[in-house]
Amino acid sequence: MHAVLPQQKTALAALHAAMPEGVLLSDHSDLERYSRDWTGDHFGRPLAVARPRSVEDVSLLMRCCHELGIHVVPQGGLTGLVGGAVPSFPGGEVVVSLERMNKVRSINAIDFAMVVEAGCILEDAKRQAEAADCILPITFGAQGSCRLGGNVATNAGGFNVLRYGMTRDLVLGLEVVLADGRIWNGLRTLRKDNRGYDLKQLFIGSEGTLGIITAVSLKMFPRPTQIETALVGLASVEDAMALYAVARRECSDLLSAFELILRGGIEIAVNAHPDLDDPLSQPYPVYVLLEASAGGRVDLKALVEDFLANAGNLVLDGVIAASRAQGEKLWLLREMMVEAQGRGGRYLRTDVSVPISSIASFVTESIAALEVAHPEALVVTYGHVGDGNIHMNVVPPEGMRAEDMDGLFHAAEDIIFDVIDRHGGSISAEHGIGRVKQRAYIKRADPLTLELAGRIKDAFDPLHLLSAGRILPLREV
Amino acid sequence: MHAVLPQQKTALAALHAAMPEGVLLSDHSDLERYSRDWTGDHFGRPLAVARPRSVEDVSLLMRCCHELGIHVVPQGGLTGLVGGAVPSFPGGEVVVSLERMNKVRSINAIDFAMVVEAGCILEDAKRQAEAADCILPITFGAQGSCRLGGNVATNAGGFNVLRYGMTRDLVLGLEVVLADGRIWNGLRTLRKDNRGYDLKQLFIGSEGTLGIITAVSLKMFPRPTQIETALVGLASVEDAMALYAVARRECSDLLSAFELILRGGIEIAVNAHPDLDDPLSQPYPVYVLLEASAGGRVDLKALVEDFLANAGNLVLDGVIAASRAQGEKLWLLREMMVEAQGRGGRYLRTDVSVPISSIASFVTESIAALEVAHPEALVVTYGHVGDGNIHMNVVPPEGMRAEDMDGLFHAAEDIIFDVIDRHGGSISAEHGIGRVKQRAYIKRADPLTLELAGRIKDAFDPLHLLSAGRILPLREV
Repeated sequence: MHAVLPQQKTALAALHAAMPEGVLLSDHSDLERYSRDWTGDHFGRPLAVARPRSVEDVSLLMRCCHELGIHVVPQGGLTGLVGGAVPSFPGGEVVVSLERMNKVRSINAIDFAMVVEAGCILEDAKRQAEAADCILPITFGAQGSCRLGGNVATNAGGFNVLRYGMTRDLVLGLEVVLADGRIWNGLRTLRKDNRGYDLKQLFIGSEGTLGIITAVSLKMFPRPTQIETALVGLASVEDAMALYAVARRECSDLLSAFELILRGGIEIAVNAHPDLDDPLSQPYPVYVLLEASAGGRVDLKALVEDFLANAGNLVLDGVIAASRAQGEKLWLLREMMVEAQGRGGRYLRTDVSVPISSIASFVTESIAALEVAHPEALVVTYGHVGDGNIHMNVVPPEGMRAEDMDGLFHAAEDIIFDVIDRHGGSISAEHGIGRVKQRAYIKRADPLTLELAGRIKDAFDPLHLLSAGRILPLREV
Repeated sequence: MHAVLPQQKTALAALHAAMPEGVLLSDHSDLERYSRDWTGDHFGRPLAVARPRSVEDVSLLMRCCHELGIHVVPQGGLTGLVGGAVPSFPGGEVVVSLERMNKVRSINAIDFAMVVEAGCILEDAKRQAEAADCILPITFGAQGSCRLGGNVATNAGGFNVLRYGMTRDLVLGLEVVLADGRIWNGLRTLRKDNRGYDLKQLFIGSEGTLGIITAVSLKMFPRPTQIETALVGLASVEDAMALYAVARRECSDLLSAFELILRGGIEIAVNAHPDLDDPLSQPYPVYVLLEASAGGRVDLKALVEDFLANAGNLVLDGVIAASRAQGEKLWLLREMMVEAQGRGGRYLRTDVSVPISSIASFVTESIAALEVAHPEALVVTYGHVGDGNIHMNVVPPEGMRAEDMDGLFHAAEDIIFDVIDRHGGSISAEHGIGRVKQRAYIKRADPLTLELAGRIKDAFDPLHLLSAGRILPLREV
């Protein structure tokens, strides 16, 4: 815990006086749950927590903070994994939690569009889309906790990017409160609009550093009436990628997920959950969990069966779910692997991407290098390989001391990132930079990119009050 | 023709001295074809024309222009329709034509990605994609003349937006020369990359005002092995939109085009081309030209037939093309309508959008208002209604004097835009603002949007040398 400085106390008192009753929390006990992210790895005590009920509350708050020179960090579901929404240590930031702005404002199945507030939990929005016989296709493990403002601010990825794109591709409009408290209203549901600069693109993926997203309009899609889920066993990552090449062509853009899981991941899942058995008749080095979806006029079951049956020698074994329950059980393997991989402790997460044609080389080279340098560590490899996105995580041996873990994580990350660099890849495919990936980002970014990013930051937030120190390093202004 | 000012002569001489032999044209006769756009409506004489052969040439040119204070306008195929790439009248701008940078640099069917230079003609890139058994799905009438740098700079739309998105959605990376001549290299083929601000989004759709795009990497898709094209006759725009709602659900995201054409458009096409007959057994008020595409494992013909047969009373009559040749003939109706609508003379083009659920009201209300105010004019209505995008064009009566035409066009545009405003629509769905739509854009834009746009312009082009006066009004710096 850190001390609150006298000038911070004065500013906080002024903020209390300005804000409506019930918006601002600053009692120590109230701040705890806004201080730590979902992983528990990232921690920082806020000066206070604002819980606005409306865009006007956010606007007033920012006007005050702008006047008082108070730093602010917007916060969604705290599931972002790069420490972007956790208050900075040693403090001084006011957290703006959007959790009370959680309504679906409107939903229109003819426009295939919905408007939601930033604090709306993704799963709630998805459920409402389904009630209108549509889908909101942003899909990932954290969907029961993450909030759509955060999804948009981080341009979240997930399982269905392959078919439906990143969150960016699904955003039709935004409502944003700027650093000085003014409200920018770009909350449209038009599917085509080429009037001048597309300002919303700047806020999407800027991790709260350029404005506070308060509402979002999103594309929906027709709700599929058929979903086919299959798990197949293969000899190698090369074969998995060859299967992907066939799948893209044979499944006519109906493929909605293509997840790679190495054998180790399947073992973690099976050991972690009593209901899960080894899914195929014998173990295989590599698995692919794939899904296709369609409306009623396609024989989707035949399509998936025929495609797999005709995939030559690539598919060694496989199972197609005979029911939704079986399909969900296949997905449970994927979820349990993620949940159980760290054995409840800390581990290194990476989130990298390479061109699709380099996936197999990247996996082989990285694992080989890690095995030589850190034979004691467990490497867990999986990913959304249809997008070239791999999560290669490194779990320390049981009983390793915290200091040694830090060393292992740094060294292992350097090894993985070196391979990424050789393949022209990205050290952050879908999670963003936040604070956790900043060192690695800055090291690799070319100076012109950083200069242009700095100019944008200065243009939108000249006092650097919003999420300072995320993406770009802290800088005196 | 305008006179070249003495200080422009000096600057031009310095530019000639700095640039490699053959890059700069300034003889009067050489400038003509860079002075007028495809419609012939927009004209302006450049100070000179630069035809760079490489990104280094563009970089050198911009370094010199930056030093000499010379204004520059990048130019692609001159098919943009809003005067954005036409030199400003009364002159003083150097045109940078990308026409000699027209190569496909690389193509990779496993990555489903291609890298092309900005001057590459869209149709050439599409052909090369097809040779690799893929498609580049940007598709529109001007594809034989437009260049990909221009398509990206204007975020072009077209027929296939419904399924594949706007050009923005297809861009994986960019190479851009900035106003001061520095080269920003963001030419990646990664499908997911969340490292910091996504700078390429700023250049896409900024119509040459923030940088000169010199190369683009683009998403490709599997080449469909089946295409089904149908033309159906309906009683009303309401019924067409009801059919669209059914089509989105029944065709499982395999629908690639859904074009509305009112009867008048069909008549224009049939009268304009000797090979075209009235396509259905009798005339209908409204037509929809739709297309679906898929790979081999979907029975696409049955899907389209069954969907149309089960569309209830909506479809009064229709024809499904029995061959590619027949499909192309249906598309020829669409093309000939566009080509012949103006009878070779000037006419008002609009390019508007509304939420999909407002299309029918917009069309009905606009046409009714135009008929009352301008019964002498011919209104031609068609559009990509799956995206909410209508082109409602107004053709003057034969023999109308030029001055009267200007009055008609302004009055008719005001009528259409008033209806657009009532429905919360956009006055520029896919063509951008350029100079032609600027008055209407500025009038409707909220001051905060214009202020933020101005800050971005200042951040990227502080001297306002690039495409000055497009999107935002000319401003002294």
